[in-house]
Amino acid sequence: MADLKKYVLEKCERAQIAARRMAVADTATKNSALLAMADAIGSQADRIKTENAKDLEVGRDKGLSDALIDRLRLDDKGILGMQDALSEIAEQPDPVGAIEGMVTRPTGIDVGKMRVPVGVVGIIYESRPNVTADAAALCLKSGNACILRGGSEAIHSNVVLAEVLSQAGTDAGLPENAVQLIDITDRETVTHLAQAEGLVDLIIPRGGEGLIRAVVDAATIPVIKHFSGNCHVYIDADADLKKADDIAFNAKVQRPGVCNAAETLLIHNAVAQEVIGSLFPKMREAGVELRGCARTCAIDAQCAQAIEEDWDTEYLDLILAVKIVDTMDDAVDHITKHGSKHTDAIVTQDYTTSRRFVASVDSSSVMVNASTRFSDGGVYGLGAEIGISTDKLHARGPMGAADLTTYKWVVFGDGAIRE
Amino acid sequence: MADLKKYVLEKCERAQIAARRMAVADTATKNSALLAMADAIGSQADRIKTENAKDLEVGRDKGLSDALIDRLRLDDKGILGMQDALSEIAEQPDPVGAIEGMVTRPTGIDVGKMRVPVGVVGIIYESRPNVTADAAALCLKSGNACILRGGSEAIHSNVVLAEVLSQAGTDAGLPENAVQLIDITDRETVTHLAQAEGLVDLIIPRGGEGLIRAVVDAATIPVIKHFSGNCHVYIDADADLKKADDIAFNAKVQRPGVCNAAETLLIHNAVAQEVIGSLFPKMREAGVELRGCARTCAIDAQCAQAIEEDWDTEYLDLILAVKIVDTMDDAVDHITKHGSKHTDAIVTQDYTTSRRFVASVDSSSVMVNASTRFSDGGVYGLGAEIGISTDKLHARGPMGAADLTTYKWVVFGDGAIRE
Repeated sequence: MADLKKYVLEKCERAQIAARRMAVADTATKNSALLAMADAIGSQADRIKTENAKDLEVGRDKGLSDALIDRLRLDDKGILGMQDALSEIAEQPDPVGAIEGMVTRPTGIDVGKMRVPVGVVGIIYESRPNVTADAAALCLKSGNACILRGGSEAIHSNVVLAEVLSQAGTDAGLPENAVQLIDITDRETVTHLAQAEGLVDLIIPRGGEGLIRAVVDAATIPVIKHFSGNCHVYIDADADLKKADDIAFNAKVQRPGVCNAAETLLIHNAVAQEVIGSLFPKMREAGVELRGCARTCAIDAQCAQAIEEDWDTEYLDLILAVKIVDTMDDAVDHITKHGSKHTDAIVTQDYTTSRRFVASVDSSSVMVNASTRFSDGGVYGLGAEIGISTDKLHARGPMGAADLTTYKWVVFGDGAIRE
Repeated sequence: MADLKKYVLEKCERAQIAARRMAVADTATKNSALLAMADAIGSQADRIKTENAKDLEVGRDKGLSDALIDRLRLDDKGILGMQDALSEIAEQPDPVGAIEGMVTRPTGIDVGKMRVPVGVVGIIYESRPNVTADAAALCLKSGNACILRGGSEAIHSNVVLAEVLSQAGTDAGLPENAVQLIDITDRETVTHLAQAEGLVDLIIPRGGEGLIRAVVDAATIPVIKHFSGNCHVYIDADADLKKADDIAFNAKVQRPGVCNAAETLLIHNAVAQEVIGSLFPKMREAGVELRGCARTCAIDAQCAQAIEEDWDTEYLDLILAVKIVDTMDDAVDHITKHGSKHTDAIVTQDYTTSRRFVASVDSSSVMVNASTRFSDGGVYGLGAEIGISTDKLHARGPMGAADLTTYKWVVFGDGAIRE
């Protein structure tokens, strides 16, 4: 529809103007605006909850699952969570403005790389309305303007949140239109946003694989994406088996529905008997369904036979695929072939093996003697995260405010010309 | 053609295997391989020149322009240039392996970002055969495998160069297939390479805008591109007019056919009369055609009237568009509207103005009192450059070996699990 395209592109044009002003906004103004936004969410909590109740009601009428309703809900804890995120982001260092690697060159110029905002960032997300606050805060902190396109289920919540955040921001001195919401949730608006070449600099989709594929397929501008988390734990021949037990169990069971939970366990044959004997009963007690390779099943008769598809599946559930390997290289080969470059861990006490695993596994996070569940922006110290990238360029793994910046070369001369 | 696709994808698969080995190649092996490649080019210079002569002959028969023939030619100076680039790249620090920002987190893990190669890099280029050596060297230095797809005009030169480089590399201990050439120059091979999802991590096209557009349109994998260089020099009210004269002249005249040459001159009205009086005669003497806004033409009657299109044109020639503006903000607005985010310079003695210009202009290089002609990997200290990016993500402006790396998060625990 021409009208929808115009509607989206006008927002993008306003965002471009806002982005130029955001790029020169000083740190104090940005931080006080973030704190003012936290306050505003608190003082307008009742209004936010009232609007959120409308989304919940529509959701229930539509027959949304309890899990989805739960994601939609903004109760007092949810309000407080958004306020905390805003304050935390305010407290982080400003990622913009630092000049790295400044050198004086033989030609007499000084040259370095200055951290600058990306520009206009489009965030496309699904049902969680708290993303509206998190994403806006991270974009503003990093000097960007943002265009938010949330899901239809959360539209009442998103509209009020965007209004409260935007008003508090401009009252505190941020430019108009630094935070805009696309409040028409027709699918077509996603396409127009993802094709706004020259107006939007980056798109970050947050949600299920279906949403992300749709955005990537439509986009003509850069997208940083998170596809899937098929994470592995490899228990090496030289593993401390107590650590191995703890890590494998934690990686699978502590929160199985998230992307950094382990989906496949690889065990070196030298320790397979012992690991399986100790770990499988605990896993079963926690409700984990085990699917093993032929050698695993030979050790553990109760174990179901894994099929080829299991190695490629992100269960997001209490299911674990298990394979016995003969060498660390076989484990790395398996991860290379079946992994999703998200997070993979080795359990070993051998120094050289740990170094080789870290060098060989091409994933956004590679861990030694630690649970894959640590792969998270908060845990890594980024504060709130804008997403987890499974891409290889620009940003990998958990992304914070600094990952919403790029650089420009700055050159200072004193009348310097090229000979 | 299914056969061509198979031919390209088989190279990509071999490159994937090579990339995994390159990622763990040590610095000494990589550097001695680069030096061995430089030696091999010297010892095989006659063979290289013989093959190059075939390209020149075919080119002349085809009626290629003198400029194109010149780009194709590998004489002794060209051979030496490739050898120098290889040695220089060998001497650079290894961009791979450093761990940045390692911190111990409250959860007991140590976490940091390790610089790692991108993986498999595809370089698609036109007639200059020296790109074969430069691109291979930069990819190997940064621990990547590369697939080179040069133009048909240089095919004999590229085949012999790729063979010499590859042989010298493997003799010195690099993995097989770390450097591969696509020696079928059918256009379709470009498409297959640019769509080799999961096998190629990055495509860098080098050449004219037509080639780059074609690659971008075909690609389903990330492309870092260099579209155009519509560079500006802005002479501020507070400029030192001697510096202004020198910089504007140098930026336009010193080498007009390259992307970092200036195409538009913006002059503050307070100094327009004086600048035009002094600069225009010199420009004309150097053969520069001047096309001015109405106010410029009012000062200089000889000046041709610029049309709207002039502000958007990368002349790559001795033509300069000239516009008088009333404020620095107007200059920035003009650059924002018409520039290509490549390189833009201000000439001013005013401290605050210089800082505001640097903060406000969103280009890959922003310069103060220096000629736009400095925007170059060699000048910036990167050694050889793999290209100049006009993208905003991952890498901006001149790209060296370090820009062919990314990072992975590394996490070290001692049995750490998430509570």
